[in-house]
Amino acid sequence: MIPQDDRGLLLGDGLFETILAEDGGLEFWDEHMARMARGCGVIGLAPPDAELARGAALSALEAAGLASACAVVRVTLTAGSGRGLERRPDDRPRLVVTASPYQRPSGPARLSTSDVRRNEGSPASRLKALSYLDNVLARREAVVRGADEALMLNTRGELACAAASNLFWIAGDQLFTPALECGVLDGIMRAQTMSAATELGAQARETRAGADVLKSAQAVFLTNSLMGVRAVCEIDGRPLGGHQLLDAIAGRRRRGAVGR
Amino acid sequence: MIPQDDRGLLLGDGLFETILAEDGGLEFWDEHMARMARGCGVIGLAPPDAELARGAALSALEAAGLASACAVVRVTLTAGSGRGLERRPDDRPRLVVTASPYQRPSGPARLSTSDVRRNEGSPASRLKALSYLDNVLARREAVVRGADEALMLNTRGELACAAASNLFWIAGDQLFTPALECGVLDGIMRAQTMSAATELGAQARETRAGADVLKSAQAVFLTNSLMGVRAVCEIDGRPLGGHQLLDAIAGRRRRGAVGR
Repeated sequence: MIPQDDRGLLLGDGLFETILAEDGGLEFWDEHMARMARGCGVIGLAPPDAELARGAALSALEAAGLASACAVVRVTLTAGSGRGLERRPDDRPRLVVTASPYQRPSGPARLSTSDVRRNEGSPASRLKALSYLDNVLARREAVVRGADEALMLNTRGELACAAASNLFWIAGDQLFTPALECGVLDGIMRAQTMSAATELGAQARETRAGADVLKSAQAVFLTNSLMGVRAVCEIDGRPLGGHQLLDAIAGRRRRGAVGR
Repeated sequence: MIPQDDRGLLLGDGLFETILAEDGGLEFWDEHMARMARGCGVIGLAPPDAELARGAALSALEAAGLASACAVVRVTLTAGSGRGLERRPDDRPRLVVTASPYQRPSGPARLSTSDVRRNEGSPASRLKALSYLDNVLARREAVVRGADEALMLNTRGELACAAASNLFWIAGDQLFTPALECGVLDGIMRAQTMSAATELGAQARETRAGADVLKSAQAVFLTNSLMGVRAVCEIDGRPLGGHQLLDAIAGRRRRGAVGR
């Protein structure tokens, strides 16, 4: 339980990470904690002690009977207790670490372009912030439309991401992903995917592009820390194919060369 | 205390209202509850029972020893318990009602134009949503710059609001306020102020305008349910004067003709 005056609850004032745990191993733990620390710098919170958080994560897995399972550990850091828009100098961040079972989504994703735009004009759009309602609304809208996930543009109409993953596409046999300045989370699997592409001799390009570029894309896929790489089979009802580069990246992930 | 799996905490998935209570009277209670119900329609939550919430508000005031004081009642509605981006069909919203002392800010406000933009591309920008981090960051930046409050533009560069209030300005002896489509909360004191202006023979115009219009404004002021009307004396270090229309609106508020 957390207090009713927690600023995470009252104002979405805080950050989180969701970490894949397999058989008790915390995938990319250091990367997740480093990202949270960078985010703390942006929003002005003291970062959590990574070792204390790791202990809490392992305890949470144990307590939930998930130490030998596929699970998701969520590390939530709030700005602590306090009322009003302004934090008090003596507010201390609150760390909440939980574990739940995780099941990867099966099959490729059908996307629906969302009416909810990413706010590239706020630093929060590049952070995993507790103020996540835009993503909730985008996903909700996608599901209502019979899709699995939302394709989100920013307010300039540029491609940004999905509601809970980063976006990649292959066009002219080249790999592309929206630049962070488009209002995009600096995804850990996004970075891993870009590294994997480089190792495969296919440099990924960060770019600013309108949604139209996906109409001529050879393949589109999503990445995040939990599911790894997931192909997109459809956008707004229009079918999409595969590509050997997507297969190669997903294959590396399956063999443990990406995402371990 | 609230559970750790509350979606308000985890994802900013919910809405709130802050209501001025004076001597146990809940100002604009019906308007606040009607706005929350409209917001619930937008984000897909069942609205709270207004009578149950009123009872909780009066109990909270009593319990906090604020039944005869100037206080703020906060009504928080979250999407209930649940993990993952998607709400489950059986999720039930959670209502949290608290009371705290309130003291009106003294004197006029100094504004600083924020680098954090309002996302007019999301319905959440027109709601009092728990995902409030942009406002927290904007206020924080303003205070660091030595100001009292942030002046927020939307991503198109249009005037929107302050971090915790609506914006009005007087130019050519006419009253203006940003249109809701600029990414603006449908403020209860905003509506009251527009009505008051009409009664004073000075129709308020909802408009889309860039920040430059404030450079030739005769007066600028802020409104919200708690503080009522607050003059702005400075924007980014540039001093601003008063205006008889602002005095007349603020005077009506003080006499109880606005805001009761």
